[in-house]
Amino acid sequence: MGSIGKYTIPSAIKGVRVSQLLQIEDERGAVLHMLRPGDDPVVVGEIYFSIINPGRVKAWKLHKHMTQRLAVPAGKVRLVLFDGRADSASRAKVEEIILGRPHAYYLAIIPPGIWYGLQNISAEPALIANCADREHDPAEVDELPLASDTIPYAWKEALP
Amino acid sequence: MGSIGKYTIPSAIKGVRVSQLLQIEDERGAVLHMLRPGDDPVVVGEIYFSIINPGRVKAWKLHKHMTQRLAVPAGKVRLVLFDGRADSASRAKVEEIILGRPHAYYLAIIPPGIWYGLQNISAEPALIANCADREHDPAEVDELPLASDTIPYAWKEALP
Repeated sequence: MGSIGKYTIPSAIKGVRVSQLLQIEDERGAVLHMLRPGDDPVVVGEIYFSIINPGRVKAWKLHKHMTQRLAVPAGKVRLVLFDGRADSASRAKVEEIILGRPHAYYLAIIPPGIWYGLQNISAEPALIANCADREHDPAEVDELPLASDTIPYAWKEALP
Repeated sequence: MGSIGKYTIPSAIKGVRVSQLLQIEDERGAVLHMLRPGDDPVVVGEIYFSIINPGRVKAWKLHKHMTQRLAVPAGKVRLVLFDGRADSASRAKVEEIILGRPHAYYLAIIPPGIWYGLQNISAEPALIANCADREHDPAEVDELPLASDTIPYAWKEALP
């Protein structure tokens, strides 16, 4: 019962913003905030969900123009970021962020130019909501395989 | 594997629109559409989730101005509608709509003036996403208890 307030979590990568989202719980369930009019940026281009099965990884992707706004209302995931921007103060930095209720029900905002991947680290299907700032366009997406010389990070995929 | 196309489900209540949403599945999980730029209405005021525990009911609510756009990416729910609009061709009609993956992954659009309630009819927590067309404002919400003389519908709440 009760609610958890809003605060910001520091990120090692310039332009990435992670903040606590409100959760209002009662005996029937909960109401979970995701995006409200006061939020910046407010433009919503497309809203979709990604389901990841336990142990599985979806990686790597980089958007040249799209800003991702992610929250994880079910399950728990490891979000891994790699700063691929040539002109960034945090260039080539890697960061891991855990997302999931109740203690890490966060809004994670990922600007363009960041490689990112997600692994479900819970025993149930994880649900990632994305309120992107523009419509999906395959032409603005770069992809790399899980194992790549570009990104110094080793995924440990746990296959069933 | 594969995807399910988009089609519209008829509703007994005027102005209610229910349409199949795209699901793209692979061995890692799925991508589930919710709202895209081509959709009408496109204005997004607030995005939030409602979690309902198994068997529990959240009812009744009526919005005087807000349009609800609901999808259920996890669990299965019974959405019950009652047309409370004095001037509606479907005035006082009751309708039940099942929402949940994979066969009823729908976008349900509920215009203002409709009483609605939701029951989780699955064994797992159900997650309802709402992309409302305006910000939550308690002044534009009417509420009634589960049992009310106004609405001829008997919820059978299954408490744990």
